[in-house]
Amino acid sequence: MHRIAVVNGPNLNVLGRREPGIYGPGTLEDIQSALNEKFAGRVELSFFQSNSEGALVDIIQSLEGKAEAVVINAAAYTHTSVAVRDALLAVKLPFVEVHLSNVFAREEFRHVSLLADVAVGIVSGFGADSYELGLEGLLRKLENSK
Amino acid sequence: MHRIAVVNGPNLNVLGRREPGIYGPGTLEDIQSALNEKFAGRVELSFFQSNSEGALVDIIQSLEGKAEAVVINAAAYTHTSVAVRDALLAVKLPFVEVHLSNVFAREEFRHVSLLADVAVGIVSGFGADSYELGLEGLLRKLENSK
Amino acid sequence: MHRIAVVNGPNLNVLGRREPGIYGPGTLEDIQSALNEKFAGRVELSFFQSNSEGALVDIIQSLEGKAEAVVINAAAYTHTSVAVRDALLAVKLPFVEVHLSNVFAREEFRHVSLLADVAVGIVSGFGADSYELGLEGLLRKLENSK
Amino acid sequence: MHRIAVVNGPNLNVLGRREPGIYGPGTLEDIQSALNEKFAGRVELSFFQSNSEGALVDIIQSLEGKAEAVVINAAAYTHTSVAVRDALLAVKLPFVEVHLSNVFAREEFRHVSLLADVAVGIVSGFGADSYELGLEGLLRKLENSK
Amino acid sequence: MHRIAVVNGPNLNVLGRREPGIYGPGTLEDIQSALNEKFAGRVELSFFQSNSEGALVDIIQSLEGKAEAVVINAAAYTHTSVAVRDALLAVKLPFVEVHLSNVFAREEFRHVSLLADVAVGIVSGFGADSYELGLEGLLRKLENSK
Amino acid sequence: MHRIAVVNGPNLNVLGRREPGIYGPGTLEDIQSALNEKFAGRVELSFFQSNSEGALVDIIQSLEGKAEAVVINAAAYTHTSVAVRDALLAVKLPFVEVHLSNVFAREEFRHVSLLADVAVGIVSGFGADSYELGLEGLLRKLENSK
Amino acid sequence: MHRIAVVNGPNLNVLGRREPGIYGPGTLEDIQSALNEKFAGRVELSFFQSNSEGALVDIIQSLEGKAEAVVINAAAYTHTSVAVRDALLAVKLPFVEVHLSNVFAREEFRHVSLLADVAVGIVSGFGADSYELGLEGLLRKLENSK
Amino acid sequence: MHRIAVVNGPNLNVLGRREPGIYGPGTLEDIQSALNEKFAGRVELSFFQSNSEGALVDIIQSLEGKAEAVVINAAAYTHTSVAVRDALLAVKLPFVEVHLSNVFAREEFRHVSLLADVAVGIVSGFGADSYELGLEGLLRKLENSK
Amino acid sequence: MHRIAVVNGPNLNVLGRREPGIYGPGTLEDIQSALNEKFAGRVELSFFQSNSEGALVDIIQSLEGKAEAVVINAAAYTHTSVAVRDALLAVKLPFVEVHLSNVFAREEFRHVSLLADVAVGIVSGFGADSYELGLEGLLRKLENSK
Amino acid sequence: MHRIAVVNGPNLNVLGRREPGIYGPGTLEDIQSALNEKFAGRVELSFFQSNSEGALVDIIQSLEGKAEAVVINAAAYTHTSVAVRDALLAVKLPFVEVHLSNVFAREEFRHVSLLADVAVGIVSGFGADSYELGLEGLLRKLENSK
Amino acid sequence: MHRIAVVNGPNLNVLGRREPGIYGPGTLEDIQSALNEKFAGRVELSFFQSNSEGALVDIIQSLEGKAEAVVINAAAYTHTSVAVRDALLAVKLPFVEVHLSNVFAREEFRHVSLLADVAVGIVSGFGADSYELGLEGLLRKLENSK
Amino acid sequence: MHRIAVVNGPNLNVLGRREPGIYGPGTLEDIQSALNEKFAGRVELSFFQSNSEGALVDIIQSLEGKAEAVVINAAAYTHTSVAVRDALLAVKLPFVEVHLSNVFAREEFRHVSLLADVAVGIVSGFGADSYELGLEGLLRKLENSK
Repeated sequence: MHRIAVVNGPNLNVLGRREPGIYGPGTLEDIQSALNEKFAGRVELSFFQSNSEGALVDIIQSLEGKAEAVVINAAAYTHTSVAVRDALLAVKLPFVEVHLSNVFAREEFRHVSLLADVAVGIVSGFGADSYELGLEGLLRKLENSK
Repeated sequence: MHRIAVVNGPNLNVLGRREPGIYGPGTLEDIQSALNEKFAGRVELSFFQSNSEGALVDIIQSLEGKAEAVVINAAAYTHTSVAVRDALLAVKLPFVEVHLSNVFAREEFRHVSLLADVAVGIVSGFGADSYELGLEGLLRKLENSK
Repeated sequence: MHRIAVVNGPNLNVLGRREPGIYGPGTLEDIQSALNEKFAGRVELSFFQSNSEGALVDIIQSLEGKAEAVVINAAAYTHTSVAVRDALLAVKLPFVEVHLSNVFAREEFRHVSLLADVAVGIVSGFGADSYELGLEGLLRKLENSK
Repeated sequence: MHRIAVVNGPNLNVLGRREPGIYGPGTLEDIQSALNEKFAGRVELSFFQSNSEGALVDIIQSLEGKAEAVVINAAAYTHTSVAVRDALLAVKLPFVEVHLSNVFAREEFRHVSLLADVAVGIVSGFGADSYELGLEGLLRKLENSK
Repeated sequence: MHRIAVVNGPNLNVLGRREPGIYGPGTLEDIQSALNEKFAGRVELSFFQSNSEGALVDIIQSLEGKAEAVVINAAAYTHTSVAVRDALLAVKLPFVEVHLSNVFAREEFRHVSLLADVAVGIVSGFGADSYELGLEGLLRKLENSK
Repeated sequence: MHRIAVVNGPNLNVLGRREPGIYGPGTLEDIQSALNEKFAGRVELSFFQSNSEGALVDIIQSLEGKAEAVVINAAAYTHTSVAVRDALLAVKLPFVEVHLSNVFAREEFRHVSLLADVAVGIVSGFGADSYELGLEGLLRKLENSK
Repeated sequence: MHRIAVVNGPNLNVLGRREPGIYGPGTLEDIQSALNEKFAGRVELSFFQSNSEGALVDIIQSLEGKAEAVVINAAAYTHTSVAVRDALLAVKLPFVEVHLSNVFAREEFRHVSLLADVAVGIVSGFGADSYELGLEGLLRKLENSK
Repeated sequence: MHRIAVVNGPNLNVLGRREPGIYGPGTLEDIQSALNEKFAGRVELSFFQSNSEGALVDIIQSLEGKAEAVVINAAAYTHTSVAVRDALLAVKLPFVEVHLSNVFAREEFRHVSLLADVAVGIVSGFGADSYELGLEGLLRKLENSK
Repeated sequence: MHRIAVVNGPNLNVLGRREPGIYGPGTLEDIQSALNEKFAGRVELSFFQSNSEGALVDIIQSLEGKAEAVVINAAAYTHTSVAVRDALLAVKLPFVEVHLSNVFAREEFRHVSLLADVAVGIVSGFGADSYELGLEGLLRKLENSK
Repeated sequence: MHRIAVVNGPNLNVLGRREPGIYGPGTLEDIQSALNEKFAGRVELSFFQSNSEGALVDIIQSLEGKAEAVVINAAAYTHTSVAVRDALLAVKLPFVEVHLSNVFAREEFRHVSLLADVAVGIVSGFGADSYELGLEGLLRKLENSK
Repeated sequence: MHRIAVVNGPNLNVLGRREPGIYGPGTLEDIQSALNEKFAGRVELSFFQSNSEGALVDIIQSLEGKAEAVVINAAAYTHTSVAVRDALLAVKLPFVEVHLSNVFAREEFRHVSLLADVAVGIVSGFGADSYELGLEGLLRKLENSK
Repeated sequence: MHRIAVVNGPNLNVLGRREPGIYGPGTLEDIQSALNEKFAGRVELSFFQSNSEGALVDIIQSLEGKAEAVVINAAAYTHTSVAVRDALLAVKLPFVEVHLSNVFAREEFRHVSLLADVAVGIVSGFGADSYELGLEGLLRKLENSK
């Protein structure tokens, strides 16, 4: 069974409360439950969330040896954090970048990602489904590269 | 059953032959077969490909009344075509933008999309699976918005 | 009698259906009829439309010896086509650039025209009337330069 | 009968003397006479000119309740005046931006207009005829929006 | 009585010690005391400071239901944090951005704020008084919008 | 008693009439009355307004020896006038820049101020209260620097 | 004998008629005859021209297995077409980029080529001779790399 | 005898009072006297100053037929006024641009002149002597071109 | 004996594991040991590392009175943190910026440092030796400025 | 017989030793021999090389009256030397710009040429053959313009 | 008597031959004679010219102790040479920058000077007279600062 | 024993005389003596200085076979010379870039180095010690790579 970590960045802990017109009505727990159910028996998922850039770096470093790959919604840090990028490169785990909203339809500073060029792939704009799609895509990549 | 068009831009007709290190070994027909099989009974798919920007505009216009939504891999025209954007806006069909390769890991001119800000969502980097993931995401959107 | 060609670019064939809030409710045929009626006996008009950049180049080249001047709404190709510009320069026919909508009130990429600096003049924002105004202006120019 | 103001910016008072190769041989009075004659019985026109940005703001403010709409050739202030823009927005009168010369064929600083995105439409490059075309277009807009 | 949170970003805990030529001689505690005294009986103030971007996000999230509005001096994070911006948008509390120094008279990277366009207003350059002025302005806004 | 001039730029004379959704319902006279009342006995205020950049320069020059400091809402000229900046530097009076609306939430050309880097401080976004807050902040500065 | 394709972009079909001051008096047929004569017995040349970007993509794709290398004058599409670039990369044929005029002495948008960085070499400014020089250079490359 | 106008822009009326560290201790009258004395019998000088952009346009227009050439210190308007440029072009009088201070050693917005490319020459940085040097240079030009 | 703090930013705790091709095989503990040995008897070194921007600010603030100067490898925060810059300025300790890799040979976003212009000096590209060289350079500066 | 100078810039004296993967294995002497042989009886060639910008200016100046035209590979100075450009313009000799490597496939600073817009033509990317092709093209130009 | 050096950059040795339409018909020797005659008894002038950037640095360094100030026409090196700037700063001699042509009316790369911000003043556009005017201005500065 | 060349660019021959506030009081000879003493028995050093870009290219080319590596302070040419970069690449010797002053704390044009991305490492800001530190770092690199 694949072991994959789902890492969430700032303000995703208040999902459902936060601008539901943009991010949808579900919570991060809802996403976690849906993923666990959907991928049961196929993937062992671990979930993380932090509002702190440094804590996200800690989390990513801790995945070494414990996860094969990462689905990350770095949220605001997508656009500003070289440290999260460096952590992902340091652990050498393939990762998929996901976003709930379509970042290209929002403020211009959200059009730039400091992660995208070193990601396996990007899924953006499908609400909570972005996670499932990104995870599915990541699994296919892992399976294909065997 | 949902009726969805899958529209493909320039050079996708030579998929499999074209830079397989970047785009993968499968052909566009392989993608078509896989999608038809995967979504059989759930979606009625129609497939289009053209190397011509104008023909793509014609195709998109012709979808009015024949498709509910579009999965589009506009390939090179993603980065240069206002005409394709205008055609998609003219028919008012929701669409998902997909790419075989991770466009953000390639030349800088591929980082800009003239479609992304009016798309439902974007899937990039998963090879042939980008189509399936994008179509799945699009279906969820259609179902959620009912 | 003056012989003038009216050349229309991509998506203008679906005028009336396409984003009527921006482009107005009339069709391209309505515009053609109105112009024919308005300028009857004064100008012999020929009308062209294509969604294809290459076909527009063909059309413009074919005007040599058949038209004295051109009214062009190159639509999306206004902002992206060096080829249409080159065709207009090749035939050496004076031309007026017209737009249904006010392009300066829309997306930033519509603020740049690859035709404007070699045009006689520009008319933008008056809906279907932009054609009539542009044609009137062009006729005055032709008459003044005699 | 429509009441429309024609507002002229700096150096238009020396029209005819000023760079006739670019602006044509007629004077501002010639333009005024031609417009009065052409639109007699259909529009009541008032004419204004000033070389001063502040005086143009005063003029535009004074139009409130006295004109339904404005044809403005802000000349040099087109490219530099936020104050004229703000005055036009303050009086909430629809306006058309006109230019004698084709501003897009001249210095790069003339390609930017601080008025265009809030104008009804733009007419540029037809010499004195730009006023007539712009006024005609404005009248159509007023009539259509009734 | 209004409940308002005053949120302070990095290095404001060493105020008084830190570059007093730029930031003034008073400490953050002095500011807190002055505000409590000045607004006693009119506003119930809560004060927060952190050097950590993530902790500031936590603080802002925790204000939901406990404060009506926010006065924020995000200091260095004003110019770099999308996460703080997102937290403020997530809690949907109106906020005022304040700065001790005149940020426009300093390094160019301090001229850009990632908060300003979604703030109620900005007060910059009045030393410790910026807080009082910003809070006063915020209260007026709250009272006016009732 | 402090003598302070309140200088207002273009279109502020039509305040209340001008885009009340942005600038609020009060007039410049209302602001003047409110300030006079609020600061009675503490400051002797003089008020000026002009739509003309040159007249504003004249006004500012005339303040030498008659005012200790300036509250200025240069409106549109904030973003375009080097002459107003030079006048303020010429008279060597400290000044505060105020704006009724939050300029950072509006068009991009309003994000740049030619005055801000030489101002004491900036207050933006509090409607008519911006004047009172700016004046209060200026007085504190004057009192602190004694 | 080497088999090489000479591919020509938009408006080259009207060569001789089109701006002879810039492009010279000869026609594309003249160029074809001269090349055939010059390289007779050494190279088997095939000639193509289209005004359509999509047709050029079709042509380039069709060269696979039929030509060893390409001499391309993509004309206007040099500066705007990612699709032509992608087609050239898809067929993996070495190519030389040629221009009749010196593109660096013309409008700034002609200084950027979307083909040059993946070309073998560039020849620009020698009129019809650019083709012969480019073809000669290409042959040398083919011969040297054996 | 040559007839030359010396035109001065905003804030030059307070010369001597205004930032003497930058502009020197002399007044505009001192400059006028010195020039009159120095060029007595050789040039008939007329002097103008205004703080208003529009008035400067008026002044320049009035010079037609009354002056052969212009020495202009447009001060702040050097960097912002297309109207002054247009006035100078309208009267077709050769002019020299002068500055008291070295504008290239000051704020970046002072490095751009809207007049320089159509001036005969530029003299900057010699204090009051800039006028004398510029006038001398202008006279030589007039004499040489006879 | 000099007291100097060596402050390390994000991902330096996994040195040796992290991209050894870029950063070298040694760990941060190896660097610490080597520095202690090399500078024994001459400098009292204290070592810090954190993945958190806020914690780095805390650490730097805590150095006041405990260290004379700082050697800092802010890693990713070098390029993104105004807060770390402000902390270094707040404590007023001279500091040297060091990097293991040559940052100028890597991604463009690593070419910009928010610390460099207020540093004593920079050492970049010598692997673990960068620390020793930077510390040696810093000591010389301290000794020279006595 | 035509007299043409071949001028070579910095580091071309070490050709063959210098990065042969980019520049090829031949030396400058090899190029000279090949050109002499190839153009024997048709052109009298003179050869120059210098690593010094100033010496290249001297060389170019000395060609006046001694050469009809120039083939120049200015190497590094192509991208940085206004002085070489000015020398070429001073002697008024037509020249062709040649490069061994394809400069558009290398570092971005090599994409800009300070010579190209005043050259007859450009040949880049054919190794030593670039010289022969450039010279051939230049001769044709000379012969055509007779 | 003042001792002043007149330093001339590349291609000024061919003055008179070089583009006389831009630079005038006189030679550098003519300028030297005219200056010697004009300033005889008031200034002891030394003249230098080199086409080499390095030689100009040598010349400027050699002026230490031999000249009080410098008039420099660095020609092409004005726009590209940090070395000449550094030499002028090293010798700490005040200098005036002169140009024969109006550099602001020419190519955009001539609008930037690497010397101007550290010069006393600039004179540009008066042909050979620029030297005399610049020298006169420099002398006044020297005399005023005594 | 290692053989290393120390190459110095323009104006370093006047070190000690040149802006000692920035560059320190020592001369280049002092630096040479200190290095010889410090590295006696470990490195055989050769020293070079030139004010000429071309001579620096000559020097660097001459090092082939005579030095193993280079310490270079290219001074002004750091920011402007592609030729020096090309020479260093041509000889394929590893090099360290050193600067006396902290170039990042000075004019913006000194923040860009044309050498840094191909250097082993950079040392900037330690005065004369930069040479020693850079040389030490270079030696370590040479020793480690054995």
